Amino acid sequence: MNTVELIKKKRDGKVLSAEEIDYLIKNYTGKKIPDYQFSALLMAILLKGMSSAETASLTKSMLLSGKVFNTSSIKGSKIDKHSTGGVGDKTSLIIAPIAASAGIYVPMISGRGLGHTGGTLDKLESIRGFRTDLSLSKSKAILKKCGAVLIGQTKEIAPADKLIYSLRDVTATVESIPLITASIMSKKLAEGIDGLVLDIKTGNGAFMKSLNDSIQLSHSLIHTAKSFNKKVISFITDMNQPLGNYIGNWLEIVESVKVLRNEVKNDLYLLSLKLAGAMIFLGRKAKSLNEGEKIAANKIESGEAFKKFLEIVKLQGGNTDYIVDPNKYPKSKHIKKLYSNSAGYISGMNTYQIGMASLELGAGRRARSDIIDHKAGIILFKKIGDAVKKGELICELHSDSQSKLKTGEEIIFGSLFFSRTKQREPSLIKKIIY
Amino acid sequence: MNTVELIKKKRDGKVLSAEEIDYLIKNYTGKKIPDYQFSALLMAILLKGMSSAETASLTKSMLLSGKVFNTSSIKGSKIDKHSTGGVGDKTSLIIAPIAASAGIYVPMISGRGLGHTGGTLDKLESIRGFRTDLSLSKSKAILKKCGAVLIGQTKEIAPADKLIYSLRDVTATVESIPLITASIMSKKLAEGIDGLVLDIKTGNGAFMKSLNDSIQLSHSLIHTAKSFNKKVISFITDMNQPLGNYIGNWLEIVESVKVLRNEVKNDLYLLSLKLAGAMIFLGRKAKSLNEGEKIAANKIESGEAFKKFLEIVKLQGGNTDYIVDPNKYPKSKHIKKLYSNSAGYISGMNTYQIGMASLELGAGRRARSDIIDHKAGIILFKKIGDAVKKGELICELHSDSQSKLKTGEEIIFGSLFFSRTKQREPSLIKKIIY
Repeated sequence: MNTVELIKKKRDGKVLSAEEIDYLIKNYTGKKIPDYQFSALLMAILLKGMSSAETASLTKSMLLSGKVFNTSSIKGSKIDKHSTGGVGDKTSLIIAPIAASAGIYVPMISGRGLGHTGGTLDKLESIRGFRTDLSLSKSKAILKKCGAVLIGQTKEIAPADKLIYSLRDVTATVESIPLITASIMSKKLAEGIDGLVLDIKTGNGAFMKSLNDSIQLSHSLIHTAKSFNKKVISFITDMNQPLGNYIGNWLEIVESVKVLRNEVKNDLYLLSLKLAGAMIFLGRKAKSLNEGEKIAANKIESGEAFKKFLEIVKLQGGNTDYIVDPNKYPKSKHIKKLYSNSAGYISGMNTYQIGMASLELGAGRRARSDIIDHKAGIILFKKIGDAVKKGELICELHSDSQSKLKTGEEIIFGSLFFSRTKQREPSLIKKIIY
Repeated sequence: MNTVELIKKKRDGKVLSAEEIDYLIKNYTGKKIPDYQFSALLMAILLKGMSSAETASLTKSMLLSGKVFNTSSIKGSKIDKHSTGGVGDKTSLIIAPIAASAGIYVPMISGRGLGHTGGTLDKLESIRGFRTDLSLSKSKAILKKCGAVLIGQTKEIAPADKLIYSLRDVTATVESIPLITASIMSKKLAEGIDGLVLDIKTGNGAFMKSLNDSIQLSHSLIHTAKSFNKKVISFITDMNQPLGNYIGNWLEIVESVKVLRNEVKNDLYLLSLKLAGAMIFLGRKAKSLNEGEKIAANKIESGEAFKKFLEIVKLQGGNTDYIVDPNKYPKSKHIKKLYSNSAGYISGMNTYQIGMASLELGAGRRARSDIIDHKAGIILFKKIGDAVKKGELICELHSDSQSKLKTGEEIIFGSLFFSRTKQREPSLIKKIIY
């Protein structure tokens, strides 16, 4: 096969065969195709698209570029969830223990935060001692024992994805549905799962800004999952405001604990029940999505989900003292409280900017090498549609640095919108596709 | 400026400003933008196109990446011709002396053959001693003295084009009208010309297979030339059969000499008069294209053009003995004559394959490092529309190697088509645009 001819084929909108795609991935991963040829191919894929068969072939070749988490010795359904990411999105921390306590095995491989979004790994690592860099065999032992394990992507899993993602990042080829699909699915399929719940975020804090793009991505992911005989369901959910009220690594652990302890019934709680319920349904522990959701609610009420969370933390080396009593955790040196100037209603938020404010306070990274301040972040006391009295507390900013606090405060001022009349809150679940 | 944002802009079909294009070319030429980013940009340009303003900006930035042939001290019109290349296309060798003998200055920078097409430099170098690698100052002296100089592209001229062309070649981004336009025009404008005659080949031996593509390319080249205040005229001419009857480096010199000596009146002669006539017209030595053509014919009849050719050869170090008596030149070891099996007419040719046959005989290069056999090539005794008797000589193949001769013969057999009834010959000039 000839690389230039294959690029030409895609450039001219023709369909590449499974063998041709495999040739391209194998030789790129094996350093036989140079970056400059592969980036021309990526641009051709972005602009000309890929058929669902091509996307499945691409996923398969990327998956097979590395090792697969062999979970065949574990009897029971292995189900995971994937979210496309947003601000305050901490459902993984809640639904993994719920689903595990309902008899589902959850082999969850997560990523780090970059840009305006946080990452599950960074949140977990705010728990003192928590290890996310476990070996595949150690991870499997924990999964077998307690029903869930939350780890990071190792070098062995889908190395082609890592290489291709770095190249996409610097060649303006990130926003391609087939490339996004193959990147997500090659990693998720490497977990050895039977089914996958997708949480596709849409709105001004999501990577997919339009509902239509989110629907297209859902269809592409579902088609690919099904071509690998995986059970799959996709929720398109709101990201026009942060999910829940806490943003920042340790702060998000605190809010997750509140939900798991049945102390909060906000949008985070509601979405967590939906997603965990779908995992329980896909894993055949419920006969419908509704029944799955009820089981999930029960697991919170009974305390089993919180107990499971403590078990996971302990098995992965984390200190549970802070989980049981979050007040013991160190606080940021500076906590700035912001109050309302006038009476009215919250009418909207620039969610992307709120994520950037949290990053500026110390909770995120500008570059991969930046060190995170786990304590830093934002607590929102109001969400869209809420009434606000004059002088009422709207939010808190947490940071160790006065100058960072100032930057964060400036961003937040421009990111919260008010009106005199009550606004309808955005609907949490836009669409369910399966 | 941010390279990724600029790639994204073009990817999304937006128009890049002159400053943005200049940033990209300067930084790519200066090795600050890596190949993998530039190839993604090239693919985006190929698939999304460029406006005529963008194409002119790209041309300018590429032109200014190197030195320009300063011809301002030469009083008189400096006019060149550019052909997009084909099989047997040797008009440069004929029209440079015609135009120079009519008082036009012709600073001609040519290329080498690659693939199925020959290159003017390789043809010139088949003349013993002929030097094409002259310095810019030496070239200018020859141009001033005799009115024409035929040299190769130096490293100083449009280095951005050289870099970009190599990258396009391996990333399936050759077939882009704006990129082709900027590549041609940046080099031609570096010659310091006042006007340019374009010969855009169309047909099965041309790079542009369809007439529509050739028309589009003509418009793009004309628009760009005019934006630099250059006089320009474009001929779209036939390449559904080789031009003239001789293919191969020295063989093409032989045919050029025949035309210059007024011994042949074939399609090569007719096209040479058109192109040289247009150069004479653009250089204000004729009041119309027709008058220019008549002057060109007169320059051949009077012997002035041939005398000028001998003068150019001598000034560039070439041995004129072989020009005056081509029979003295060494012959290929093997000359295979092919005869017709039956009576009929030539109905068509696979011109690309005829070019490849000539390459296989030794006249061309598969890779840039291959060494050319100047004697090798093909003489066609018949062209489309010609009657052929049974047993009549159709062509001759010249090669030093028996095995190459066999390969060439096999290709030629599949490349000449016959019919029982007379076919119309393809029209030589498809369109004139200015």
